[in-house]
Order: sequence, then structure tokens, then C-alpha cells
Amino acid sequence: MSTPPPIEYADASPRVRVVFDDIKKTRGVPDVNNFWKYLARDPDTLKRTWESVKEVMARGALDPVVKEMVYLAVSVTNGCAYCIASHTAAARKAGMTETMFGELMAVTGMANETNRLANGYRVPIDDVLKG
Amino acid sequence: MSTPPPIEYADASPRVRVVFDDIKKTRGVPDVNNFWKYLARDPDTLKRTWESVKEVMARGALDPVVKEMVYLAVSVTNGCAYCIASHTAAARKAGMTETMFGELMAVTGMANETNRLANGYRVPIDDVLKG
Amino acid sequence: MSTPPPIEYADASPRVRVVFDDIKKTRGVPDVNNFWKYLARDPDTLKRTWESVKEVMARGALDPVVKEMVYLAVSVTNGCAYCIASHTAAARKAGMTETMFGELMAVTGMANETNRLANGYRVPIDDVLKG
Amino acid sequence: MSTPPPIEYADASPRVRVVFDDIKKTRGVPDVNNFWKYLARDPDTLKRTWESVKEVMARGALDPVVKEMVYLAVSVTNGCAYCIASHTAAARKAGMTETMFGELMAVTGMANETNRLANGYRVPIDDVLKG
Amino acid sequence: MSTPPPIEYADASPRVRVVFDDIKKTRGVPDVNNFWKYLARDPDTLKRTWESVKEVMARGALDPVVKEMVYLAVSVTNGCAYCIASHTAAARKAGMTETMFGELMAVTGMANETNRLANGYRVPIDDVLKG
Amino acid sequence: MSTPPPIEYADASPRVRVVFDDIKKTRGVPDVNNFWKYLARDPDTLKRTWESVKEVMARGALDPVVKEMVYLAVSVTNGCAYCIASHTAAARKAGMTETMFGELMAVTGMANETNRLANGYRVPIDDVLKG
Repeated sequence: MSTPPPIEYADASPRVRVVFDDIKKTRGVPDVNNFWKYLARDPDTLKRTWESVKEVMARGALDPVVKEMVYLAVSVTNGCAYCIASHTAAARKAGMTETMFGELMAVTGMANETNRLANGYRVPIDDVLKG
Repeated sequence: MSTPPPIEYADASPRVRVVFDDIKKTRGVPDVNNFWKYLARDPDTLKRTWESVKEVMARGALDPVVKEMVYLAVSVTNGCAYCIASHTAAARKAGMTETMFGELMAVTGMANETNRLANGYRVPIDDVLKG
Repeated sequence: MSTPPPIEYADASPRVRVVFDDIKKTRGVPDVNNFWKYLARDPDTLKRTWESVKEVMARGALDPVVKEMVYLAVSVTNGCAYCIASHTAAARKAGMTETMFGELMAVTGMANETNRLANGYRVPIDDVLKG
Repeated sequence: MSTPPPIEYADASPRVRVVFDDIKKTRGVPDVNNFWKYLARDPDTLKRTWESVKEVMARGALDPVVKEMVYLAVSVTNGCAYCIASHTAAARKAGMTETMFGELMAVTGMANETNRLANGYRVPIDDVLKG
Repeated sequence: MSTPPPIEYADASPRVRVVFDDIKKTRGVPDVNNFWKYLARDPDTLKRTWESVKEVMARGALDPVVKEMVYLAVSVTNGCAYCIASHTAAARKAGMTETMFGELMAVTGMANETNRLANGYRVPIDDVLKG
Repeated sequence: MSTPPPIEYADASPRVRVVFDDIKKTRGVPDVNNFWKYLARDPDTLKRTWESVKEVMARGALDPVVKEMVYLAVSVTNGCAYCIASHTAAARKAGMTETMFGELMAVTGMANETNRLANGYRVPIDDVLKG
């Protein structure tokens, strides 16, 4: 009754391989990260998650490095160690410099602080902010 | 034993007024938001928080609109209603368009989802992501 | 199929009344808060929760006002509006002054900030802190 | 001033042994998990927590496997590594199959995503949902 | 620069109407909830979110009422007021009785408590739970 | 493009050394913890964070051990492993006994539980608690 192992490409079903191939092609990497190998235990979730991530993280009005930094800020707020590691790497690859990282952490930390000050002081929303 | 009221400028001590004046000048606004009026119950926290926010949110390697969007993504993740209202307004003022908002929410939502998939599948950090 | 209403003393079963009576006696209040009236929809949860809260919040090595302030700090961190309101009142009743409240919020805010800085910088635990 | 060690059965006080014995008997296991050995540092918390868990997790209107899956979904949302490990095992023992696990993670992930979309879009509660 | 209003069916683009129609048909309801009307400000996110929710919440190895209860437990843990309201209604519609609700809340509350006890006591994962 | 290493005193810039020296002097320790060595990658954040922590954690209306226990309760609630380790040590150093630790965890756990019960039962704030 042990946990099923992650799925390596060599052992993947054709349906999983289609997703792995698309990840590798889209990202220009030789292999997919552990995240996808573990999700592959459930091919439906693997496919849906990848297609959603691909759509959401594509270049749009926001630059890819901005999207990756937002992803990292959320992961840091939630304390997800895996996600912090993978999105730090992804943000760096997309162009995040050490200075940008420092500023990102500063903003993320400050937001977490003032969120609680607003909660604790029970600050009512200003009329001009309601719209 | 009721909660002390927020501090309006007219009733503020000189020390609080100095902070209020700097907020108004820095942001080019005629009055400060409720957040600052409530924090003014504790002048030390008011001063320290404003000076930190001012330093952290200043233009740097990251554009102000990016910083405001990160602030919003964190506030949305934490579910702080006041902060969501105030930083949505601030991000719009700094240049966030409706399309940028849509993408920001999409990334924030997706990050919150995959953070939990990584937790639940207990994905170990890839060796290449450890550095 | 609407949500069942909260239980007022007049409409409570004998089993619920025993709990309500003990809350009123222990706290020296004429009526119980909404929290207990809503929990009374499930008498098992009402009874278990009250007995646990009564045991945990009793005077021990920690002073009651310290316990109430910790309760408030957790509620602020989680953003539970009801709990922030009720435990702010409880902490004030137990002796929390405005100055103590200000310091409590300052510590709570700072902890939420540095928690994320530690996450984001992926700080490994110092050997001397591992024991 | 190092952290006190967990309490093994051989070293446990009679009061702790009573709880350990009840856990072992109720669950049909030869030894208790680390969680209980660490809680045993505080016999009051050990006893109260076990009695609460025993009452809450007993078969009721909800099947034990459903309760364990809910426990796991909460632990995944909070990112508690120990709890994810122990409740994944408990849910499997109670009958959670790999397919059920996959669906549970999919729902948990989606809920975490849409929670933030609802926050970010500041969706007001529909009148029909207020009751 | 005020926030765009939610999209009512009468004002929706053909692309949004296709999604609204599918929600109404799938759920057998005369109108969609506010959540979807607000998401409709971003048709891509509306479409992707609905298709994901539809796939994830469909009957599978888990009964729909179980899925709705898990959704509710996560929303309660995160403190998302809108989601708590909408998924309480959805779970009731799917068959959650008042007794089941009481048990669900009891498990959700207990999991949130023991998650923190495990964190605070820094309980290491038992070898038998690592697989 | 690997992550920059933490900054040891021997390799620190004069600006960083000033902060490190003040931490060591204020706390009476021979070296700073990893937290500060990692933050030193961004001297602005290092300086601002230290000055804020120093101000917030100084003796005031609340005793230092109370402040450290609040810090620990927040860190436990957020699940920040590094912060739990460092603030458990700091609280012990400031006078937290094993009994106090046990009570602190009990309150922290209970608050996390009742926060969710209040959320799930959608308890409205009592009129007397609104002020």
C-alpha cells in the first residue's frame, strides 16, 4: 500500500508522453521536473494542469518574468518549498536578476506584514476604494 | 473599553502629522487612507510601517506597477479584503489595465492550485533546483 | 434547505443549556456569544469545543491576558474577522491596554513578514537551532 | 536548554501510557506515531487532543475514509508535511484508492485556485446564498 | 478607472454566453452565480476555470457530495467567505445533511489544530510514513 | 545562474558588517544566525528588517518572552520551519519553560481550530463586539 512512484518518460503511457513532450518542447528542456512526473500518476490532472499553466504563463500583457515573479511571491506566501525552488529557477531563467529578487522578497514580506496590520486594526474599506 | 477611533489629521499629534504629510506628498493625495488613520493609534508602528513601505515600493529594478501587482497577488492569496481593495486601486493608478489584472489573477489562482498539488503529491525538489 | 438558525437559550435542548450555563458562569456573562449559539447546531462539537477552550484558556503558567493575546495574534494571521473581534474584546477584558495591543500587532506583523523572508531566501536551519 | 525528547512508551508516565494504550487499541497498531510521542511532553494536550480526535474521527454520518480525505485536504492546503504524510497513510488504510487520491488532490487544488479568484475579483455573495 | 462591472447574460459576448449556457445546463439552474459573472470580465479565465471545475467536480471515484464537502473544508480553512457560502449551498444541494455538515466542520477544525501542533512540536515524519 | 551564497562576516561589505555588529551586540551572540546571512544578499532589506525587528522586539509594555511566544505562535500558524526553530530557541532563551511552551501550543492549536469553526458556521459578529 506504498505510494506509487513518479512516472519517468520511459515508463509513461502514450497519453502522458504527449504531455511530457509538449512541456519539453514548450520550455526547451531535455526532461520534465519532478512536479510533472508526480502529477503523471493522474493523467487527467497532469493534462489539465499543464494546459492551464501553459495558457496562463504564456506571454500576454504581462512579461513572462513578471508572471514568474508573481508565482514566486505566492509560493513564498504559502510556504511551498518545492514551488519556491522551481519558480525561483524559472524566474531567474526568465530574467530575474539578484536585485529584482531582493525587491520581490521585500514587497512580498511587506505585503504579508501590512495584510495582518489591516486585519488586526480592523480597518474598514475607504468609500473611494469600494468601486 | 471600546476600541479607540482612527486618527484624523485635525486630531493628530505633531509626530503623526509628519507621517501623514509625507504620505500625502509622496503619493500626491489630499488625505491618507483609513489604513494609516488606524495605524496612527500607535505612532511608532505608523512611522516604521510608512518608512518601510515607502522604501520598498519606490521605483527600483522593478517597475512600481509590478510591485503593486505583487502586493495585490499576496493580498489575494491571504484573503485580506482591505488590502485587496487598496492595492487594486493602487495598481490601477500605477498603470495596471483590465487585461493585466486578468492575467495577474490567473497566475495567482494557478500558483495557489499548483502549490497544493506539489504539497499533496509530496514532490521532492529536483537536484538541479536545489542550488 | 436554508441554513439552520443559531440556538438561543430559550430554544436550547437540556444538553446545550448545560454548556451555555457553564460558559455564562465561567465567564460571568449574562449570555453567550454568537459563536456558541451557532456551534449549538451540533451539540457534540459545542460541548467538546467549550471544554477544550475552557481547559486551554484557564490560568496556568501563562497569564490569561497572554493567552488571549496569542489567540488574537493567530486570528489576525489567519484573517478570521469574527475571531479578531471576539478575542480583541476578550484580551481587553483580561487587561490588554492600547499600548499592549499596539505592540502585539507590531510583533504579529513583523513575524508574518520575516516568515516569508525566511521562506523566500530558503534559509537552512542553523545547526545550533536544530535540537 | 535543548528541546525535550519525544516520550517512548517505556519511559512514559502512567497517565501518558493510558492514552498510548487507548490509541494502540483503537487503531489496532503496535506503537503510536511520532505525533503522539511528541505531544506526550504535555500530558494534558496529549489527552485532550487524542480524545477529541477519537470522537471526531469515529464513524458517524460520514464514512471514515471521507473524514481522512477531508483531513488530508486541509493538511495539503496548510502545507503541513507531517500531517500530509500521516493522513495520506491513514486515508489509504481506510480505503482511499489511487484514483480517489487523484480526485481528492484535483478538488483540493481547484478549491485553492477559485478561493483566490473569488477574493481577487471581490465577488459579492449572491442573495440566494446568504441564508 | 472604476472596477468593471460583472457581466450579465444580456450583455455578454457570444464567447461568454457559450460558457454561461453550459454552466446553466450542467447545473440545471436558471442563472449563473456572481462568481461566473465576475470572472466573465476575463473570458479566457472564465472558460478555463469552468472547464476545469466541470471536469474536476464530475462524478468519479468520489461522490459529488464528497467533492463538495472537500471544497467546503478547503474554503473554510482559507477563510474565503464567498466560497464558503457557495459551496455550503452546493454541498447541501448534493445531499449534505445538517449532521454531515457538523461532522465536516469538526474534522476541518481538528485538522487545522493538529496541523499546528505538528508544526510547533516539530514532529519528524515516522519512517513508516515516508513511502 | 545559481543562487548567491549567504554572506559570512569575513566576506561582508562595511554596510553589512555594521548591521551584523549591531545584531551581535544587541543579542550578545558571537555570530548572527543564517537568517541574517541570507538577507545580507540585499543590504537594504537586511538593514530595514533588523532595525524593525530590533524596535519591535525591544522591551515595552510586553515582556520579551511574551513577544517571542507571539512570534512563535504566528510562525507555527504559518508553518515556517526556520522561524519555528529560531523563535523556539529565542523564546527559551528569554525564559519560556517547557510548561509555558505546552500552553502556548495548546492555545495556538485551539485558535486555529475555532478560527475555522467560526468561518464554517459563518458566525456574524455580535453587536457588542463591533466597537
